[in-house]
Amino acid sequence: MTATILDGRALAKTMRAELNEEVATFKEKYGVTPTIAVVRVGEDPGSVWYSNAIKKTMAGRGMEAQLHVLPETATQEELVALVTRLNADPAVHGIMVQEPMPKGIDEAAVKAALSPDKDVDGVHEVNAGRLALAAPAGRPAGVKPFFVPATPAGGMELLRRYGIEFKGKHAVVVGRSSIVGKPMALLLLRENATVTICHSRTVDLPAVCRQADILCAAVGRPEMIRGDWIKPGAVVVDFGVNDVEGKMVGDVAYDEAAEVAAMITPVPGGTGPMTNIMLVKNVIEAARRQVAR
Amino acid sequence: MTATILDGRALAKTMRAELNEEVATFKEKYGVTPTIAVVRVGEDPGSVWYSNAIKKTMAGRGMEAQLHVLPETATQEELVALVTRLNADPAVHGIMVQEPMPKGIDEAAVKAALSPDKDVDGVHEVNAGRLALAAPAGRPAGVKPFFVPATPAGGMELLRRYGIEFKGKHAVVVGRSSIVGKPMALLLLRENATVTICHSRTVDLPAVCRQADILCAAVGRPEMIRGDWIKPGAVVVDFGVNDVEGKMVGDVAYDEAAEVAAMITPVPGGTGPMTNIMLVKNVIEAARRQVAR
Repeated sequence: MTATILDGRALAKTMRAELNEEVATFKEKYGVTPTIAVVRVGEDPGSVWYSNAIKKTMAGRGMEAQLHVLPETATQEELVALVTRLNADPAVHGIMVQEPMPKGIDEAAVKAALSPDKDVDGVHEVNAGRLALAAPAGRPAGVKPFFVPATPAGGMELLRRYGIEFKGKHAVVVGRSSIVGKPMALLLLRENATVTICHSRTVDLPAVCRQADILCAAVGRPEMIRGDWIKPGAVVVDFGVNDVEGKMVGDVAYDEAAEVAAMITPVPGGTGPMTNIMLVKNVIEAARRQVAR
Repeated sequence: MTATILDGRALAKTMRAELNEEVATFKEKYGVTPTIAVVRVGEDPGSVWYSNAIKKTMAGRGMEAQLHVLPETATQEELVALVTRLNADPAVHGIMVQEPMPKGIDEAAVKAALSPDKDVDGVHEVNAGRLALAAPAGRPAGVKPFFVPATPAGGMELLRRYGIEFKGKHAVVVGRSSIVGKPMALLLLRENATVTICHSRTVDLPAVCRQADILCAAVGRPEMIRGDWIKPGAVVVDFGVNDVEGKMVGDVAYDEAAEVAAMITPVPGGTGPMTNIMLVKNVIEAARRQVAR
């Protein structure tokens, strides 16, 4: 078997075209440009790269990305003051504070300072809580609208657009970070999958993975998940972004896995491009909630 | 094999004695009586029974339980106004709004109106979010202190006191309610168990249950989980409280299960008494956070 590629790059392209239309319509109707404020403290190279990528993607859709850079020496009070100002600024619809933040800054406190309504990265405890409390899809959610972190939201969108059924499927999520693994598990659960969450303490991880109809990897260990950990016909979603001697590789040993799986995301070109596009979607959604009252 | 009984009734008794001391010390030190305000709308018999039970348990510890009853016809605005008043009342450390609330009242909006610091029942989205975001036990939590719903918190306490190891164990939680199943899954995950969440859409539920080292049932279907769904030597935690012709039975077929499991909670006398005592613990903890600054 050679797996169908879940082509995030192609889907992101399709979605960019959809979003161009959506943004144009929005701007015409409300006379407002959906705007994100990206906040960075210091010059972490990954963060610099990511903020530039966001700026480019937003600009390409006719949206705006403000970049607010504080020096490495900025205090938590200064950072929280900036966030508070952006919370109150009606021209800013979404706010993202880039991580990692310098030592001495309490990341949780900074995230908690965000307005949940502008937390387009889905890191605020209120958004995490609403995701955790939300009823399964198809029923009234029972919570107010919320934002989901862009990476798992992008993984779900990719699966949905390729027509993957979730109901009754056994999904195994390897990794339990607050930004990928746990929200991905909760999203799959909402779609009526049976969900298993694994991590570094899981005993016989290969055997657990082999049960997965949908296997999601978010551990940050290059090619940890081997071909013989995968059930024939499974769908494999690789969130891993590992730098191995200058080459980007996922958490899944792609060549082996593609022989066994029915569908698989490549790295790069799978979940990565989807993350970027879901952030754009969240900014438009934030603008809509704030402007279209 | 005949299972060891996880005796919630006996443990609750032990814990009541511990809490008596804790409350006495607290009152002596701060001159403050830990106090919960229980809010009920209407006269749902289960709610009346539960509020009386809370009052009795609190009184027995030297604590106070205020009972605030609104008529069945009360509006959401009246209920939120009462909650807001209790939020601001320094003599009230914990607030619980009983469910079910009458039709026409938006339960989520009422819960969101609670002060998270007084939400001793752990129903506020901020408390749910902190639980979802909290790092595994043993590492800095990365979130502010939070309250967990009393039922799953009681189940965990019962397991802990019986010396159950969680790390690397496969825990299967059947049921995904916001008040039991999902928080129980997150608590087990924090303790480094591998966790599977099942529900009504799970395919071949018996086979999934048979994998569990720790099997938790919270579905509300009398004796649904049979003896042959249980792995020999498993630990079984039954959160079910079902009325079958006037007799209280759990979600697990107890007699069959006790032949296979190593340890099991009876119904009644297992997780039930623990729920009550964990609420007391949460009220003391709330008082401590508010008074001991």
